[in-house]
Amino acid sequence: MEVGKSVKRVDALEKVTGRAKFTDDICPSNALIAKVYHAEIAHGFVKSIDIEEAMKVPGVIKILTCFDVPDYLFSTDGHAWDPEADHSNMDRHLLNRHIRLYGDDIAAVIAEDSVAADQALRAIRVEYEELPFMLKAQDAIKEDAPQLFEHRSRNICGETFSAYGDYDTVTKEEGLHVFDDWYAIPRVQHCHLENGVCFAYQEKEKITVVASTQIPHIVRRCVAQALGVEWGMIRVVKPYIGGGFGNKQDVLYEPLCAWLCTQVGGRCVKIDTTREETFCNTRVRHCYDIHIVTHVRENGTIAARYMEMWGHQGGYTSHGHGVTENAVGAFMNLYPCDACKVEAHSVFTNTQPSGAMRAYGFPQALFCVETQIETICREMGFDSLEFRKKNMMNVGFKDDFTKNEVFEDGLSLCIDKGAELFRYREKQQRYAHQTGEVRRGVGMAVFWYTSGVWPVSVETDTCHMILNQDGSVQVIMAETEIGQGADTAFSQMAADVIGVPLKDIHIVSTQDTDHTPIGFGAFASRQTFVGSFSIAQTGGILKDKILEAAERKTGYAKNVLDCVDGNIVTKRDGRVLISLKDLSEWSIYNRQRSEQLTAESTADVKANAFNYGCTFAEVEVDIPMCRVRLLNMLNVHDCGKIINPALAEAQVHGGMSMAIGYGLQEELLHDPKTGRCLNGNFLDYKLPTFMDHPRLNAAFVETVEPKTPFGNRSLGEPPAIGGAPAIRNAILAATGVSLYKIPMTPKVLYEAFRDAGLFDGPTVKKAE
Amino acid sequence: MEVGKSVKRVDALEKVTGRAKFTDDICPSNALIAKVYHAEIAHGFVKSIDIEEAMKVPGVIKILTCFDVPDYLFSTDGHAWDPEADHSNMDRHLLNRHIRLYGDDIAAVIAEDSVAADQALRAIRVEYEELPFMLKAQDAIKEDAPQLFEHRSRNICGETFSAYGDYDTVTKEEGLHVFDDWYAIPRVQHCHLENGVCFAYQEKEKITVVASTQIPHIVRRCVAQALGVEWGMIRVVKPYIGGGFGNKQDVLYEPLCAWLCTQVGGRCVKIDTTREETFCNTRVRHCYDIHIVTHVRENGTIAARYMEMWGHQGGYTSHGHGVTENAVGAFMNLYPCDACKVEAHSVFTNTQPSGAMRAYGFPQALFCVETQIETICREMGFDSLEFRKKNMMNVGFKDDFTKNEVFEDGLSLCIDKGAELFRYREKQQRYAHQTGEVRRGVGMAVFWYTSGVWPVSVETDTCHMILNQDGSVQVIMAETEIGQGADTAFSQMAADVIGVPLKDIHIVSTQDTDHTPIGFGAFASRQTFVGSFSIAQTGGILKDKILEAAERKTGYAKNVLDCVDGNIVTKRDGRVLISLKDLSEWSIYNRQRSEQLTAESTADVKANAFNYGCTFAEVEVDIPMCRVRLLNMLNVHDCGKIINPALAEAQVHGGMSMAIGYGLQEELLHDPKTGRCLNGNFLDYKLPTFMDHPRLNAAFVETVEPKTPFGNRSLGEPPAIGGAPAIRNAILAATGVSLYKIPMTPKVLYEAFRDAGLFDGPTVKKAE
Repeated sequence: MEVGKSVKRVDALEKVTGRAKFTDDICPSNALIAKVYHAEIAHGFVKSIDIEEAMKVPGVIKILTCFDVPDYLFSTDGHAWDPEADHSNMDRHLLNRHIRLYGDDIAAVIAEDSVAADQALRAIRVEYEELPFMLKAQDAIKEDAPQLFEHRSRNICGETFSAYGDYDTVTKEEGLHVFDDWYAIPRVQHCHLENGVCFAYQEKEKITVVASTQIPHIVRRCVAQALGVEWGMIRVVKPYIGGGFGNKQDVLYEPLCAWLCTQVGGRCVKIDTTREETFCNTRVRHCYDIHIVTHVRENGTIAARYMEMWGHQGGYTSHGHGVTENAVGAFMNLYPCDACKVEAHSVFTNTQPSGAMRAYGFPQALFCVETQIETICREMGFDSLEFRKKNMMNVGFKDDFTKNEVFEDGLSLCIDKGAELFRYREKQQRYAHQTGEVRRGVGMAVFWYTSGVWPVSVETDTCHMILNQDGSVQVIMAETEIGQGADTAFSQMAADVIGVPLKDIHIVSTQDTDHTPIGFGAFASRQTFVGSFSIAQTGGILKDKILEAAERKTGYAKNVLDCVDGNIVTKRDGRVLISLKDLSEWSIYNRQRSEQLTAESTADVKANAFNYGCTFAEVEVDIPMCRVRLLNMLNVHDCGKIINPALAEAQVHGGMSMAIGYGLQEELLHDPKTGRCLNGNFLDYKLPTFMDHPRLNAAFVETVEPKTPFGNRSLGEPPAIGGAPAIRNAILAATGVSLYKIPMTPKVLYEAFRDAGLFDGPTVKKAE
Repeated sequence: MEVGKSVKRVDALEKVTGRAKFTDDICPSNALIAKVYHAEIAHGFVKSIDIEEAMKVPGVIKILTCFDVPDYLFSTDGHAWDPEADHSNMDRHLLNRHIRLYGDDIAAVIAEDSVAADQALRAIRVEYEELPFMLKAQDAIKEDAPQLFEHRSRNICGETFSAYGDYDTVTKEEGLHVFDDWYAIPRVQHCHLENGVCFAYQEKEKITVVASTQIPHIVRRCVAQALGVEWGMIRVVKPYIGGGFGNKQDVLYEPLCAWLCTQVGGRCVKIDTTREETFCNTRVRHCYDIHIVTHVRENGTIAARYMEMWGHQGGYTSHGHGVTENAVGAFMNLYPCDACKVEAHSVFTNTQPSGAMRAYGFPQALFCVETQIETICREMGFDSLEFRKKNMMNVGFKDDFTKNEVFEDGLSLCIDKGAELFRYREKQQRYAHQTGEVRRGVGMAVFWYTSGVWPVSVETDTCHMILNQDGSVQVIMAETEIGQGADTAFSQMAADVIGVPLKDIHIVSTQDTDHTPIGFGAFASRQTFVGSFSIAQTGGILKDKILEAAERKTGYAKNVLDCVDGNIVTKRDGRVLISLKDLSEWSIYNRQRSEQLTAESTADVKANAFNYGCTFAEVEVDIPMCRVRLLNMLNVHDCGKIINPALAEAQVHGGMSMAIGYGLQEELLHDPKTGRCLNGNFLDYKLPTFMDHPRLNAAFVETVEPKTPFGNRSLGEPPAIGGAPAIRNAILAATGVSLYKIPMTPKVLYEAFRDAGLFDGPTVKKAE
C-alpha cells in the first residue's frame, strides 16, 4: 500500500532541477506585454484619460481604458457557481471608472515589450473626480460616507447575526466572571513565491488563458462572464504553480488579459504582475476589529460567549463576507456553552479587497478566542489545558449545519501528545518564577477546521483515469497541484485503489479545461479530502473494468480476481494470472473485442469533517528590547489517516511559518492622507526569513475519519491557525502581559509592557 | 442536420490568419538544436567517427554517434501494434552503424543554435567500410549481393504469391488475346508543406515529444520501443500539422529527438528537417517494375490475369511489403475473372525506405491495370467504358478477405456521370481523326479503394466527449486533423448525434497521449470512416446521459424526450422543456446530485467498405515538342454519403493535383556511381505548380453505405489514383501511342513517339 508512506513527491525531480514549467516558462517569446495603469487616488471617478503621448512611445500597440471595456460585471472569488445565488458579488469591470482603492485598475497598455509598456504607463495622464476615502469599516459605515457600490446599502458587504441559547438570560446568572476584550487583527498578504501571471491568445474563436491559478475551472467561468461569452469559448490551462495560499483562489488579471488579446486580433498577450502589484492590487487576508465577551463560571465552565466583528473588507467583494461567516463558525463551534451570540459586519473600505487566505477567517477569530482563554485561565487560576479540554467540542459534538461530528477525542489526544512532546508542564514550572530582563515562557492554542466546502456550496469532483498499454494509469483531475503536494497524495491513493505500483500512476499535473474534468480547485483544504472520494469512486470503476477484461481474457470469474501490484491475481492464493500490462495491451489490440479501459465519474461529496490540533510555542522575551525570540514550536494535528507523512509534515511546517509572521511581523499599512499602501514590497513588509524561525516540529494523532475512503481529513489550512495565539500566550506566560493585537512587534510590546508597568525607570520591574 | 452541409472548416479562421500553432510555433525559444549527420556512402559500415574538431565549435553541447545509441531495434511504420506479429520490421537503431542508404543517420549534433550545429556537422570526420550498393531489386536479389539485414534472407523484405482459379488451365483456352506488358513506376515523395519537425523534453521522468505526425499514439509506442522504456513514460503531443500524405504515418526523427533530450539532462531539443532531408531521409512512395499479363476473350470478357511486381523497397522496412500487398489487392479485385495469379516481391535496396503514401500501392498497380485495359480495348476494338463496366466488380461482388461488398452500382454510376459531365463521348468522336502536330485526346481510368484497415489489423477508436456548462460539447479523439478537414467532419457528425448546433461542438485539435483516447491516427482513409463509428457510439452514450438528466430535472420520461438544436424537447410536439445549457449547469451545480455529463467509449470497428470512382482527362499533345498539356480533368467519386461537400471537393482536388505530378513530372533519381539522390530538392524535383493545373473538377455519386453510421465511406486517398492512367489513356487517344512508364516526361514521350514512328523526318507522321 502506498497510502501512509512518505513517498517522494512525484514532482520532486522537476522542482529541484528547475525543469518544472511554470506559466512564464511556457509563454511564447513573441507574446505582447500588457501592463495595468493603477489609480493614484483611493476613491473617486475617472473623468478622463489622456493616452496621446503614451501612444507615441515606440512599441506601444494599443492602450485601453475603463471607457473601452465591455459593460459586464463579474466576480472574482473562486467558488462553485450557484445559479440561484444573488450574484451581488459580481461588482467589478475589467477596468473601473469608479475607483474604489488606491491602485485600482483603470487602463492597460499593450506593447511589444515591457520597457515600452512601462514608458507608456508613465506618459498616461488621468483626470480624477475625487471622493473622501475610508480605510476603516467604522468610517465607511457612517451615514454620510460616500458609497462604493450603488447596488448596496451603506457600504455593507455582508452581515451575520447568529445565536443559540438565551444570551440575555444566561449572562444574568450570578457569580459569572466576565472577560470583555477588543482585538486588532492586521491586514496581511499571502506572499506566494510566484506572482500572479497569465497569458492569453485566441484559437479558432476560443480564447485560451494560461494562468497561475488555484482554480482553473472557476477562472474559465469568470473570464466568460467578464467578457460576456459562453463558457465553452474559454479554455484555461494551469501549469505548475508557485504557491497561492488563497490569493489565486480569486481570478486576478485573467479576465483582463483574455479581453486584451481579443483587442489585438487574438495575439498572445501576457500580464505578469510585480511583487508590488501582488501586494497592492490582488487580495489580502481580512483585517478585523474583534470584540469578545466570555462569561465564565467559578467552576471553570463557560456560560455564555459573545463576538462582534468588524471586517475592513476593501474595495471589492471578492470572498468578502464568506470569510467573516467562516470566522463566526470558528468562534461558535470551538467552545460550546449555554448561550452564544455573534454579530459580524463586513464593510467596504478603500483598501485592497480581502479574499481567501489560508484558513479563511479562522486565524483571526481563533487568535482572539485562544488568547482570551489563556488570559481567563491565568486570571481565574485554571490550568488552561484542562480548561480547554473541559469546555471544547468533545466526542459526540455535532455541528447542525455541516453535520460534522466529533467521532473520537482527537483534539484531547493532540493536546496530551503535544504537552508531552513539548515538555510543556516541565517548562511551565521551570519558567514560573522568572525575574530579570530576559524571560522565557511557554504557551499553546488549540484550533479546529473543516474539510471542503459542503454544505456551504455544492462539493463535486470528477476524475478521469486511462489505463495505458504498459499497465500504467493516467490520472486526470481538476484538483490542482499548487506546490502543496496534492499530485503525490492523489497518486498514492490511485495506486492503492487500482492496485498498481506508485511508479505506474501518471498524474497529469497540468489542468486544461478543454479536457480536464470539472472540479473546483485548490482551496478549503479540500484537495485530498474531496479528491479521495473521486479517486476511490473512479478507480473502483476502472478496476471493475480491468477485472471484467481479465475475466474475458483468463476465464476466471471476475469476483475471484484482484489487481495487486500491477498484476491480475487470484484472490484465493495470490497467483499471478497475467500482468496488467499484458492485459491492457490485449484489451486494446485483440481483434475479437478492442477496448481501451478508462473511467470517468463524478464524486458528489456530501461530507465534511472536523479536524483539530494545537500549537505549542516557547519564547524568550527581551523586555527592555521589546523583542521576542521564538525558541521552539510544535504543531500537533489530527487530520485523520495521513496519506503521506513527509508531505503532511511539510504542510504543517509551511503553515507554522506563516503563523510566525502573522503573530510577530506582518502587517500592511496605509497612508492615512492618500490611502496608498505604504509597505507593499519585500523591503518594507517584514515576511519572516529562515533566521526568524526556530526548528519547527510537527506531530500527528491519527484518529480515523469514518466517512472518507482512506480515513483522511483535511490538513492544508489548519497549520496556519495556532501559531500566533500560542506565541502570544507564551509571551503572557513569560511576562504576565496579555496582548490584544498582532503582529506583536516591538512597538506593540513596548506599549503593552509600558502600560503594564514593566519598565520601572531604567530597569525592568520584577515579576509578581 | 449538419452532416451533408458545406459548413466552414472549424479551423478556417486559424489557418487564414496564421494563428494556428504548428509544432515549430510552440517550440520553446531556448530549445537546443539537433542536426543529423548523414552518411556519404550508400552501403557499408561506420568504422569510426572523429568528433574532436566538431566539439570545439562554440555552442556545441554534445555529439552522439551510432556507437552511443541504446541497442534497441524499433520499427517506424505507423500501424496498430500487434503483440503476436513477427516484428521483423523492427530493424533500425536511433543511429546506424550499418549504413543502408546514402544519407543514413549515423551521428547527431546538439548545439545552442543551428549555425553551431551546421558548423559541427561540417567538422565531423567519418571513416567507412564500403560495400557494393544496389539501387534495384533485381540487383539486390542476386545470390552474391551483400545483405542489408543479417536476420533476413536474400534482401527480401516480403513476398506474396496469391491466386484464384486455375490460371494454367484457363490460359490454355483457345482464341484468347494475350496482353503482356512491363511497366516502370517511379519513386516519388509526398512533398507535404510542413517538413518533419519535432521537439522533446523531460518532465518528471517522462519524455514529452511534440511532433508533426499523423499518428500520435503510434509515435508514443515507437519512441518507447526505441528507447527501451515503458510506453507510459512517453507523452506525444500533436499540434496543427501541415500535411503528411503518409510520410508522417511513419515515425521519423521523434525517437532520436526523444533520446537526445535525455542525453542533455532533459533539456528541450528540437530536430527540424530541411526539405532536402525530407526528400532523402524520410520516406518515399514505392517504386516498382510491374509485369501484367491479361487474357481476353473475343467476346470482351477477361479470362485470366497475372501480375508480377518487383518493389525496390529501400534500406529499411517501414511500411515495406504492406504497400505491395495492398497493390496486389488493388489488382486482383478490380476485374474479377476466371483465374488470377500474382507474385509480388519487395526487395531491400540502398535507397530511401518506401513507406506509406496516399493510396498505398493502388496508384502503382492501377496505373498498369487501367492503362493496359485501354490498350486492350483500342487493339481489340472495344468501347473501353463498356468493357470496364462489363468486367469490373459489380453489384454483389464480395471480397472474401475484407468482407467488403458492392451493394449498389456506384462505380457504374460514376462512369456514366463522369462521361456525361465530361462530354466524353462527344470529345472522343471529335478527336477521333486528328492529324497535325498538336492533337487532343480524352482518356479515363477507374479506381476503387478500401476504408480503414480492418481486417488487416485491429481497427479501433475511442472517443471522449464532455458536456460543458454552456451546453457545448468538447470532442476529443485520437483521429488527427492533418490539414484534410477531419475535425470539421467530426464536428458535424457529433453535432447531429448529440443534437446541438455546430457552433456548440468544440473539437480538440491537439492530440496529447496523456489524455487523448487511443486511436491510430490519420491514414488508410480511416478518419471519417472509423471516426463515424466512435462518434456515433460515444455521442449516443452522452445523449443518453443527457436525457436521463433531463428526466430527473423535468419529470418527463426519458423515452419521450429528445435533444434537438441544443434544447431538450418533447418528441411528441417539439416543445422546449429546458435548454441543454441550463440542464448542464443544473447537473453540475445542483446540490441533490452533482454530475458532470461525459462519455468515453471504444468503437471496435469490424467494417470496411469499398469506394470507387473514375477520372477523366483531356490532353493536348504537342508531338514535336513531346509536351502534354492537361486541358481538363474530372474525378467522380462514390464515397457514400458525403459529410461535407466542400471539404470532399477539396480532398478530391488535392488528390488530382498529386496524380498530375505523378503522371507527368515527378521522379526521384539516384546517381548510379554513388547511390546519392540527385534531385532531392524543389529546384530539381518537379512538383507541379498551379501553372501545370487545368481547372480541376470533382463530382459525386452518393450511394449509401449500409454499414456505417452516416452512410459514409472513405475519400482521403482515392482521388490520387486515377489521374495518371487517365492522362496516359488520353495521350493514347490523341496519338495512338501506348506508354508504359511514368512520369510521362518529354523524354519518355520522345522515345515512345520515336519508336512508334511518329517522327517522320522533319514533320510528324500522319495518324492512321
